[in-house]
Amino acid sequence: MFYVVKLTIAYNGTHFHGWQRQQGKRTVQGVIEKKLSELFRTKIEIDGAGRTDRGVHAYGQVATFGVETTMPGERFHMLINRRMPADIQIVETELVDEDFHARYSATGKRYMYKIHHDCHKNPMVSDHVLHVQEALDVNKMRVAAEKLIGEKDFRSFMASGSSVKNTVREIYAIDFTERDCELCIEFHGNGFLYNMVRIIVGLLIDVANDRIKLEDIEQIIEEKDRTKLKHTAPAQGLYLMKVYY
Amino acid sequence: MFYVVKLTIAYNGTHFHGWQRQQGKRTVQGVIEKKLSELFRTKIEIDGAGRTDRGVHAYGQVATFGVETTMPGERFHMLINRRMPADIQIVETELVDEDFHARYSATGKRYMYKIHHDCHKNPMVSDHVLHVQEALDVNKMRVAAEKLIGEKDFRSFMASGSSVKNTVREIYAIDFTERDCELCIEFHGNGFLYNMVRIIVGLLIDVANDRIKLEDIEQIIEEKDRTKLKHTAPAQGLYLMKVYY
Repeated sequence: MFYVVKLTIAYNGTHFHGWQRQQGKRTVQGVIEKKLSELFRTKIEIDGAGRTDRGVHAYGQVATFGVETTMPGERFHMLINRRMPADIQIVETELVDEDFHARYSATGKRYMYKIHHDCHKNPMVSDHVLHVQEALDVNKMRVAAEKLIGEKDFRSFMASGSSVKNTVREIYAIDFTERDCELCIEFHGNGFLYNMVRIIVGLLIDVANDRIKLEDIEQIIEEKDRTKLKHTAPAQGLYLMKVYY
Repeated sequence: MFYVVKLTIAYNGTHFHGWQRQQGKRTVQGVIEKKLSELFRTKIEIDGAGRTDRGVHAYGQVATFGVETTMPGERFHMLINRRMPADIQIVETELVDEDFHARYSATGKRYMYKIHHDCHKNPMVSDHVLHVQEALDVNKMRVAAEKLIGEKDFRSFMASGSSVKNTVREIYAIDFTERDCELCIEFHGNGFLYNMVRIIVGLLIDVANDRIKLEDIEQIIEEKDRTKLKHTAPAQGLYLMKVYY
């Protein structure tokens, strides 16, 4: 039987050089392909919904692969998951139609960014949150975030070096959740440019600290000039939560 | 003024090559000494209560150092802590008598070992727990642990290569705490040999899985033969919780 298999994947990005396969480096794609190739005894390549950078985590990355095997499809999930190392978990395994593509079939994505703002840092979570020494004015961040909702040209929020031509994206929602000193910001949109979420978080923190004024945000968007936004929030606070189809 | 300063230190061991200073490697002692030397503008060396291996964490490591400075002692805490990286936190700073020594004044230590036993692993905590696929028989582990309480020669539980002569130690208590699939085992004793806690945890897991029989434990202790205990639980589940004085 020929199967197309869709994997939903959680991973701790700490010890990976990002998602994308790279010669001689431990990457999420590389490790999963190696384990699948061992299991099915044939070379397997997977297509991910998108790359994540070194240190970025995922609860809901999606990838697909095709395989010709006599192994029954119902058995895949446990077999695949058992082979994965401690920092990768296959959350779900589904058999899908051949025309399904992890990247091109996606209609939206949700990311989360986690910040601890407190004078007491918790060293145990240093690979999983951004720690900010001073308390952040979250209300100001909410007002700033509102200005980013909608369909806009987000060129100012794309890391330099990206070759993407069409930089228009729609952000459906930016939601804030606070518990004690932990702040989670969730971003839901039809797609995000390279480093866009981390650059937005950098902007929101700069607004909270009065390094950028609320009334300047519209102009920063309109100028489409990346150099206006100096801070990219670090990778370890970022989580790919879900890919929508 | 000359001060002797006692630091209580929490750290995430993930990105350190252990506690002990080593040329060209990022170690906890090395980083703290570098930051203190920068702050006081003179070479500072610290004495720790004990070494921890690569990947082992701490909530209550203790270290001392002496410094001649005009800086008032009350200001040390904030100044020192602000200089530390995200994975080290100075929990407490105290001024102590000159005859206090982090290692030789210690009267006991408490360690914790954290295990998740569940078919669903949580990749986000892979650097902070041991994940075990099968459910563990915790009651059997408790019975095994009881056999280790008291003053005994724990030579079988010392990693080979250690040069310690007197291998008699007293374990005061081994306490189990369970919440869902998380099992925390706390070890309180007057001192522990090199890798002793991790070798005990390896034994407890082997007992839970019937690889070692409960009735063989006394003999394993008496034989003083390290090769009888094949498993050393990995570093990432271990936390130095407290040093007693």
